[in-house]
Amino acid sequence: MAALQFDIVETIGVLSTNKSGWTKELNLVSWNGRAPKFDLRDWAPDHAKMGKGITLSNDELDQLRETLIKMQTN
Amino acid sequence: MAALQFDIVETIGVLSTNKSGWTKELNLVSWNGRAPKFDLRDWAPDHAKMGKGITLSNDELDQLRETLIKMQTN
Repeated sequence: MAALQFDIVETIGVLSTNKSGWTKELNLVSWNGRAPKFDLRDWAPDHAKMGKGITLSNDELDQLRETLIKMQTN
Repeated sequence: MAALQFDIVETIGVLSTNKSGWTKELNLVSWNGRAPKFDLRDWAPDHAKMGKGITLSNDELDQLRETLIKMQTN
């Protein structure tokens, strides 16, 4: 299997850091040279390893923002 | 391996639906009978299969909300 190439174009926010130093981050990530997508994922220190996560399109990110804001006002 | 039990306690928001009918959802999910956690994940129609996703603590969800609101005002 070919290695997965990634480039963290922008770190938008770090949501948490656990005892092992892994962080949960919202980033803009380019996978295999493609256009960057939003990506919510666990990372080892210095992004040496990636954990579980999901990518989000622009529309999904907008929907997520609206959902979270709506939760707050309920 | 024991089966993973889950209970979708609350669907908070559906972020998208793809051509195959899979949805990306923010839910409150109880895994193996434990206290429910926020969960952002892809699901097959009727939640028959689960795709990739991550769980989020209350604090992580609050940080995510703040991050998304900050992005909007930049």
